[in-house]
This record gives sequence, structure tokens and C-alpha cells, in this order.
Amino acid sequence: MDETGLDVQVLSVTTPAMHDLGVVSIDVARRPNDVAAAAIERHPNRFQALATLPVAFPNESARELERCVKTLGIKGLMLCGRVGDRNLDDASFAPIFETAAALGVPVLLHPRTPDPTMRKVSYSVFSPEVDNTLAQYGLGWHYDAGMQFVRLVLSGIFDRLPNLQVILGHWGEVVLFYVDRMKSLDQVSGLKHPIAHYLRRNLYVTGSGMNDPTYMARVTEIVGADRLLFSTDYPYQYKPGGEARRFLNECGLEGAEKSGFASENWLRLTGG
Amino acid sequence: MDETGLDVQVLSVTTPAMHDLGVVSIDVARRPNDVAAAAIERHPNRFQALATLPVAFPNESARELERCVKTLGIKGLMLCGRVGDRNLDDASFAPIFETAAALGVPVLLHPRTPDPTMRKVSYSVFSPEVDNTLAQYGLGWHYDAGMQFVRLVLSGIFDRLPNLQVILGHWGEVVLFYVDRMKSLDQVSGLKHPIAHYLRRNLYVTGSGMNDPTYMARVTEIVGADRLLFSTDYPYQYKPGGEARRFLNECGLEGAEKSGFASENWLRLTGG
Repeated sequence: MDETGLDVQVLSVTTPAMHDLGVVSIDVARRPNDVAAAAIERHPNRFQALATLPVAFPNESARELERCVKTLGIKGLMLCGRVGDRNLDDASFAPIFETAAALGVPVLLHPRTPDPTMRKVSYSVFSPEVDNTLAQYGLGWHYDAGMQFVRLVLSGIFDRLPNLQVILGHWGEVVLFYVDRMKSLDQVSGLKHPIAHYLRRNLYVTGSGMNDPTYMARVTEIVGADRLLFSTDYPYQYKPGGEARRFLNECGLEGAEKSGFASENWLRLTGG
Repeated sequence: MDETGLDVQVLSVTTPAMHDLGVVSIDVARRPNDVAAAAIERHPNRFQALATLPVAFPNESARELERCVKTLGIKGLMLCGRVGDRNLDDASFAPIFETAAALGVPVLLHPRTPDPTMRKVSYSVFSPEVDNTLAQYGLGWHYDAGMQFVRLVLSGIFDRLPNLQVILGHWGEVVLFYVDRMKSLDQVSGLKHPIAHYLRRNLYVTGSGMNDPTYMARVTEIVGADRLLFSTDYPYQYKPGGEARRFLNECGLEGAEKSGFASENWLRLTGG
């Protein structure tokens, strides 16, 4: 470790430029975590937070995650898909997932825009506006995030870290709806269990403001009602006038399943 | 047209090499069409066929399609996704779709393995066996085929050819299950109608041997029972012992909807 607090030993390339990038990256991650922690301290009944990490530096990320959870009371972490050309199952990211599992905090996989090469091959259609929408919230974001989860499963990470918990938004980011077909991967995966097993042991799902009872019912069949999390995607999908509250009332869940979806599944997952 | 029967005017690059490729390509397509036509002639109550086309040569494909439908009694055509680096909405393929619409025959979009670049970015995981399955029938094939359909919709082809009919297999190749999210594209698409409109006017869906009542029920909600087609994917997904027949009996459709799914939707689509 040097005077900047950066463990230069763990950088895969320790050129001066990489070192400087590491310093900036860690600083950029720490600041929103501190801001979030201050907001939580002022309004502990209104706010909770997920950690922002300098993901390109996995060992530093693991240390920052530990600080966030142990010192700042942050409840988990958010990863935004691919980092440069590395998918999240890349072995270099192991320290992040190992630390999350050791601390018992969940990893939310947030969608990100697909790789530039994929955008060119698959998501370039006609106008910049259509292309952007297709590559982002129209479809591309979601498949990209779903694929990160499928890749994590296939990497065997949940065999190595059986209590690691991942959260997918948007009712499972497309891929969850095709789980019956993905069963074909069980023949070749070499995993300890069928893929369906990990969906009921290592995955939580939230709707991200998509108040869609059909999607919710299908996801409930796949992961179980005790793995559903309520969310509004405020201020994006969120519409004023109580729509999110109405969805909670009319989503078809009752009793313990409904209160689980509303908050208790989250509280159980994160220790309150 | 030269002595080989190839219209050299319509090749985008009329080098000798392209000309030779065109000759081979057309020959390779014609032969299975002739073989299929001979089998249909011998067993008209057992067989029907979709045309194989030299897709890299769209004008030649249009002529071959016309021959297949008018002379050989073939019922439609099959396209296998991307051709080289061109997606199916590429303007060069317009003659194929225009001819299908003019003849009133459906276009089946068959999955194909994603582009090599995408395989490297998204579908390379660990072992060649896992990678192949993930890129093919585990997930990749299906998303690729589904995206071809989404791209066709966004290209405005169904506004230009409102009676063009496309068939997707595997209960809509992943993307159909995410149609509620794809509605966001309606804001920017510039199409005459919302995407949901084209799903009920220009799309037929078959299960390709995935005898899954949940998938079928969801697809029925999206495209309507009059746009479902029965299929077994023999000899791949097909299992002996009457499973496909049992699925037909137990899929939840009754009366006209059941007989439509079994055969009448197909007969109506293809004129018997």
C-alpha cells in the first residue's frame, strides 16, 4: 500500500498510469458512498443504499465494500455489467463476489448498454433514437444484464459461494422467461445442480417499476414468492398518483407473500 | 441473364468470382427444393415444404421462390437470420420479402448461431461444449432469431407490406416474452402502429417441439390463438410415445382454437 491508500500490489498492471487511474477510480466510488451514508444517517427510516465500487480494481473494490457495509451501514452493492471487455464472471472479479458472500450482502446486477461491437452488429437499425432505445431500455440493456447472470451461473460461482445472493431487475432481465429452454444447458454445464436450483437459491428479482402482474406471476413460479422484491424505479418508471401502491395491492399476492414482496423479503435478505 | 440462368445484372458485385458463387448458390438451393417437390408429389398427404433460397442473391432468391410456389407447390420460405454481416432488414433483401408478400406465402425465421463477434463477447464462457450450447439452443440462437424479427418490425417492412406474414419458432424466440418492455420503442419507432399491432397482424408462432403450456398460454395472450401453429421439431425435440399428441390434447385450447392450432391456422395461412 502506498500513501494514496491504493494497494499497488494487486493491480494487474502497475504502470504509473494504471496507478493514477486506480486512485481516481477509488475516490470517485468512495464519495457517493459517503454522501449516501450521510443521507442515511440523517433519515434512517427513509434511505438505504447499495455500494458504488471501483470495479476495474477488484481488490480495492472488495476493501471499499467492506468499509461500506461495516462502517457506513450500506446494504449491498451494485454492478453494472461488463467492465471494459471483461464479463462479470471473469476470474479477476472473484474478490468482489467473495467479499459480498462473506459479508452476507446482495449484489444487484444493473443493466448497461451492450458492448459497442454488439451495438453495431445487433442494435443498429435506422435512426440514432431507435438504435439507442433498442440497445437500451427497449431490449438490449435487459438481455445484457440477464446474460451476465447466466454467465455467473455457468461460471460455477454459486457452487463456490453457495450463499452469494444476486438481484436482477425488470422481472429477471428477459432471460428468466426462457428458463425452460435454458434447461438444455444442464446437460453440459458441469455444475453441481440444474440451473433451476440456483434460481431458487441465489437469485432475487424485482420489477423495477414494471407493474406487470403477468410478468410477476411467471417470475413467482420460477424463483418463488419469497424471492420477490418491491421497487418503483423512482424517478424513471415511477408515476405519481399511487400506481406503485395500487400494484402492491392488486398484484395477486396475499398475506405473508404480499408482505414478503412489500418489504420482508428485503429485510430478511439484508438483515433489516 | 447468361447461359447459366443467372441474372448477372442483379448481382451487386459482378466479378467472375461472385458470378461463380451465384451459380453454385442457386444450384445448391434449387436441388433440395426439387427433392422436396418430388417427395410431396409422391406423398401429398404427408409432406409440405418451405423453400430454400440462395439468400445472398436476393433477386435470384425472389425468382426461385416464385418457381417454388407456382411450379412446385411449396408453401413458403425459410430464412436463417443474418446473411454474412447483413441483418434481414437490410434493404438488399427487399425482393425476397416483396415476393413472399405478393405470392401470399409465409416467411419462417429459423434461428442461427450468433455472429462470431457476438459469440466472443457474450457467449464464450468456459468449455467449448458450454459455449456452443449457450450460443445455440441454450439461448443465443433464439435471441438472434427474435432480434431479426424485432429489426424487421422496426424497419417498417410491415407498413410497406401489410400482408407479409412471418413465423417465429420456440414460442417467439425469447423476445416475445418481453413485449411489454418493448412498448417503449413505440415512442420513437416512427411506425404507423404500436409494435403490439404487428404481433397480431404479421406474426405466427409455433412451439418447435417445446411442449410447454405456460409458454403457449403467454404467447396466446400476445398474438392470439388464431396465430398459433403446431409443430414437433422431429427428429430433434421430438420424443416418441405420443408426447406431442398429448400436448395437443392437454394444452388448454378447446374447439375451434384447438383445431386452429392443430392444423387450421396453417391451412388458412397457406391456402390449404
